[in-house]
Amino acid sequence: MKKIINNPEDFVREVLEGVVMAYPAQIKLLENSNVLVANHERPKNKVGIVTAGGSGHLPVFMGYVGRGMLDGCAVGEVFASPSAAKMADMIKACDLGGGVLCLFGNYGGDKMNFEMACEMTEFDGVKTKMAVVHDDIASSGPDSREKRRGVAGMVFAFKTAGAAAQKLMDLEKVHSIALKTIENTRTMGVALTPCIVPAVGKPTFKIADDEIEIGMGIHGEPGVEVRKMMTADEIALMIVDYITKDMPLAQGDEISVLVNGLGATPLEELYIVYRKVHRILADMGVGIYMPHIGEYATSMEMAGLSVSVLKLDDELKELLSYPADTPFYTNHNLK
Amino acid sequence: MKKIINNPEDFVREVLEGVVMAYPAQIKLLENSNVLVANHERPKNKVGIVTAGGSGHLPVFMGYVGRGMLDGCAVGEVFASPSAAKMADMIKACDLGGGVLCLFGNYGGDKMNFEMACEMTEFDGVKTKMAVVHDDIASSGPDSREKRRGVAGMVFAFKTAGAAAQKLMDLEKVHSIALKTIENTRTMGVALTPCIVPAVGKPTFKIADDEIEIGMGIHGEPGVEVRKMMTADEIALMIVDYITKDMPLAQGDEISVLVNGLGATPLEELYIVYRKVHRILADMGVGIYMPHIGEYATSMEMAGLSVSVLKLDDELKELLSYPADTPFYTNHNLK
Repeated sequence: MKKIINNPEDFVREVLEGVVMAYPAQIKLLENSNVLVANHERPKNKVGIVTAGGSGHLPVFMGYVGRGMLDGCAVGEVFASPSAAKMADMIKACDLGGGVLCLFGNYGGDKMNFEMACEMTEFDGVKTKMAVVHDDIASSGPDSREKRRGVAGMVFAFKTAGAAAQKLMDLEKVHSIALKTIENTRTMGVALTPCIVPAVGKPTFKIADDEIEIGMGIHGEPGVEVRKMMTADEIALMIVDYITKDMPLAQGDEISVLVNGLGATPLEELYIVYRKVHRILADMGVGIYMPHIGEYATSMEMAGLSVSVLKLDDELKELLSYPADTPFYTNHNLK
Repeated sequence: MKKIINNPEDFVREVLEGVVMAYPAQIKLLENSNVLVANHERPKNKVGIVTAGGSGHLPVFMGYVGRGMLDGCAVGEVFASPSAAKMADMIKACDLGGGVLCLFGNYGGDKMNFEMACEMTEFDGVKTKMAVVHDDIASSGPDSREKRRGVAGMVFAFKTAGAAAQKLMDLEKVHSIALKTIENTRTMGVALTPCIVPAVGKPTFKIADDEIEIGMGIHGEPGVEVRKMMTADEIALMIVDYITKDMPLAQGDEISVLVNGLGATPLEELYIVYRKVHRILADMGVGIYMPHIGEYATSMEMAGLSVSVLKLDDELKELLSYPADTPFYTNHNLK
């Protein structure tokens, strides 16, 4: 295991400490916990938005806590959900009087714990709503979309719901924005190499030197098929084909695209794939607004990438471009 | 070779096309060339700042073209300098009447070509100055600092000189800011795995599974020694020791720190190293201002990281925090 770490058992705590040391003006830890909360001043009654999930995916999840996106994030061990009790602490800490939206990826542990946490905080008079992101096409068919996992597309939901809350929309409205964003988001990815969970010390799966796995999850969940290695253009064509079969796009549609590196893939390769995605969509007459290209939801040293598409309407477009400022995501909408 | 590319010969052109397609409001290509220039409106007589260098290091170099940093970047093939003729085209295109600062890393080809380009553009009446970044401690001793290579620390020089130009300081002053920043910057790095140049198709060097190379360059240039794998804390201690022996820091000093991932290293590991660097410096009574943690100067899929330190005074601090907005670097200095 060739990792730049100390004791594997300390991995998550040390990452958290490093992140908080780096950005004390923007974020802080709730005392004696692994719950990260925003540290900037927020107006009374602004809807709080919180998330939670396992570690190993930076910037997901904690990197999006900050102005215009999330108010809190409960951080679990690598690939493991944090507890319901911690989530409840977070929900209470992030309620500014307007209620709290729990916005998170569709994983069994996270969902169960958030459901318990919402029940627990109800006794304290905190109004909550849940929105579960399930953007990963590979993880279930179109007839059971609610079973799909949440992957990089959740960043779009963090951004639009976060902007809605920042504009002081109420909990019902912020919730409906999150649901619309989720409804309009699809993601498809490929993996070239596995990652190594520090406490385990060996690769999560095996893949041959000349093979690529289509649709692998960000924890190494099996994809839809293993193929011989493909070119960047072939990968882009295949991914756009998967996405448009699941969510048809027509001439005149406007979308945002997020090309996400899983960790070890060079930025250069993300741009080569973006180039082809852009061309295919331009040929279809589909416009791209505010493309996001970089590492948004990783799997430590896994090589590969995913492409997410968010179908826009005027409302989502305005919310996507609304200013945000978090340690890992900055948008000031300069022209 | 497991890369998400098309024909290796098209690698650089396709990356450039992808980058320009993604950010048309911020950057554009000079016609029929591999020269990227800023696309926002700039005041007459603002000093132009240009750089150049080989590909394979995104965001270095082209990613820093934009408001408050660079006006132009000539892009070479992977790890190869662009031509003097292209540099001359760029210098002319980036002269707004106030002259042009050529600010680049200390590599033979880049330096020779920039010297030729400056001579060529002198005939056209363009006033130029050069500032050569040589921040890499590992590449030469303290008595021959001018021989050192330029690595991730150049981002600090892009930022401070870029801010000086944005504030409409004249060429002499912008040049002196660049030189002061270079004088006050040191970088030391470690590498865990090699990278693969697309047109070559095999790793640039070999390193054992349990070894780490101290001081390796971003093109795989040999470092100062190969050691058995170290912990994150040991790496942080060693790097800070190298840096402070070369540029002493005292209680009350204020610095900025840049922890740079070389490509394949997970963001989590960069924060674990930052955590220890922060603690060591805090124990010395040295303050950290605006830490930068992420991928700033990569080597495609090389694993490893570097730490750069910029010693600040009031002037450099203000320029570092001045707003900037490029496709790969955003700072709006929000409190």
